[in-house]
Amino acid sequence: VSRFTEDELVAELRRLLAGDAPGVVLGPGDDAALVEMGPHLGILTTDLLVESVHFERETTSPRDLGYKSIAVNVSDVAAMGASPRYGLVSLGLPSSTDPAWVVDLYGGMLEATSEYAMSLVGGDVSRSPRIVVSVAVAGQVARGTAVKRSGARPGDRLVITGALGAAAGGLRLAQAPPLEVAAAVRTEWGRELLRALFRPLARVGEGQVLALEGATSMIDVSDGLALDLSRLCRESGVGATVQISRVPVAPELIELAGVLKLEPIELALSGGEDYELLATVRPGALEEAAAKVRDRFGTPLTDIGEIKLGAEVIAVEADGSEHPLEPKGWDHFAR
Amino acid sequence: VSRFTEDELVAELRRLLAGDAPGVVLGPGDDAALVEMGPHLGILTTDLLVESVHFERETTSPRDLGYKSIAVNVSDVAAMGASPRYGLVSLGLPSSTDPAWVVDLYGGMLEATSEYAMSLVGGDVSRSPRIVVSVAVAGQVARGTAVKRSGARPGDRLVITGALGAAAGGLRLAQAPPLEVAAAVRTEWGRELLRALFRPLARVGEGQVLALEGATSMIDVSDGLALDLSRLCRESGVGATVQISRVPVAPELIELAGVLKLEPIELALSGGEDYELLATVRPGALEEAAAKVRDRFGTPLTDIGEIKLGAEVIAVEADGSEHPLEPKGWDHFAR
Repeated sequence: VSRFTEDELVAELRRLLAGDAPGVVLGPGDDAALVEMGPHLGILTTDLLVESVHFERETTSPRDLGYKSIAVNVSDVAAMGASPRYGLVSLGLPSSTDPAWVVDLYGGMLEATSEYAMSLVGGDVSRSPRIVVSVAVAGQVARGTAVKRSGARPGDRLVITGALGAAAGGLRLAQAPPLEVAAAVRTEWGRELLRALFRPLARVGEGQVLALEGATSMIDVSDGLALDLSRLCRESGVGATVQISRVPVAPELIELAGVLKLEPIELALSGGEDYELLATVRPGALEEAAAKVRDRFGTPLTDIGEIKLGAEVIAVEADGSEHPLEPKGWDHFAR
Repeated sequence: VSRFTEDELVAELRRLLAGDAPGVVLGPGDDAALVEMGPHLGILTTDLLVESVHFERETTSPRDLGYKSIAVNVSDVAAMGASPRYGLVSLGLPSSTDPAWVVDLYGGMLEATSEYAMSLVGGDVSRSPRIVVSVAVAGQVARGTAVKRSGARPGDRLVITGALGAAAGGLRLAQAPPLEVAAAVRTEWGRELLRALFRPLARVGEGQVLALEGATSMIDVSDGLALDLSRLCRESGVGATVQISRVPVAPELIELAGVLKLEPIELALSGGEDYELLATVRPGALEEAAAKVRDRFGTPLTDIGEIKLGAEVIAVEADGSEHPLEPKGWDHFAR
């Protein structure tokens, strides 16, 4: 027997979401939401999180899941240099779901929407054999400023925000034997790896600065640097070289490598779920872009390579040797 | 082993969706879509269809499923008197899914988006143990013209477009013994019942006319007249009387009642999935609204009752007897 009716759940969620929000003319509870879109272009994106594919109910807290379901969509908006505004949430829930779990899920979503100055304006709740969280985000971007995947040109510098591999390290840590996990969560680097996995940050401000500083192309690194770079290159019709020794590896991941058997650079290149921004800039724009991203957000912007004619993505090792950078990473149908 | 990679599937879907479309500045294939939203208010809605809850893979064609996944969202937009413009699709697919199935699903979506002058601008594809289709629609509505659920006032007439119960009849027919099904699909009424179930029509034009003619409140009847009327009354803080003998029952459902044991009026009141519009209008506006809806779209608009002070929804039978109209209908957590 179900623990709540659809209308009871919707009423509870409406109480959670109640309150005036900028631009929201009509929020949750009607057939659809009404919002101000302003004079700019609209930006629309959606992402789906599925139980036992993207997360396990046993090892993921509803707050973290809610937070992440918003952040991964915001990251897509950030990768265009745009601003997120409104979120829609479609939930599929087993009828055995505890209403408190759903309230916590929304609590995590509201933490994220508050962080990114967004509003949740509506959604749909339905029964489902497994938990499904589908979020769509609508936002805005000034005309002519959105940064696509397709604008990279030979000679552009390849840059990345932050550091890579922490989320993949967090996943390895979460799956490690209990004694290793217990020891690691007593360290700051251990907690940081888990935060990177469960509470990814979307680089909204950094994306907007990169757009203003003339980034020629941009993508968020959700499926791993190697795979997402191959996508950027394919869309732009270019190749690239990546100086492997310059790829910023999360220092916490290097700490983890002292405990678990893993290759930090492998996870940094193809671990996925980093949600850093990979962009290309004209060489003359590099210094100012890096300075602004660092000064405004404390985020490093690292020059890791160059866009080349052709279609090949080449890894250049510290000793100068070269090999193709395989587009390995998170493929939703490969596992 | 998977039959395709995520990128191969996305590339195939992009080919399907290719082509310039009005207002679409950047379509599928980047981190997010860029669209013109115009000077009007934005309208946002989303709906989730889950295998073995909303449909069975064995008995639903991918074209029908694709068509319906768009139509149910468009119906929510229609219920505000607004115009749908852009669709986002999040798909969760078992890794065993035949790519041709996905192409057919999109074929059905494109039939619907073409019918409603919309564009599919992006989405997400992910692995999932069961098929999940989550659609979000963004659209537009002129300021001050959107019709909410909350505007019904005592004395308003309660009106409904079209006729009710055909989709519920279609569901009963689809689940009937093979001989009955085979006989029914040789009849026009049998095919019409199945069409109502698998290919629901969203009343976009009718919704816009009702908005222009001053409808005070409106909702689409997705979960059954009784349940959706109770929602409209609750949001408006009013009660209602419904003249049961005036409720338009789909004639095809009455034909079905000659073959299967069922009460047509029961299915018309609480069968669900009709996607007709239930609205309230001031008494003086009724005649012109009905004439315009009929003349422009060939759709009947039937006066079935009246909005009353209070909170009770009362059914008035043909003999004048009265009883509460139970808000029975499709509750996603009750079954």
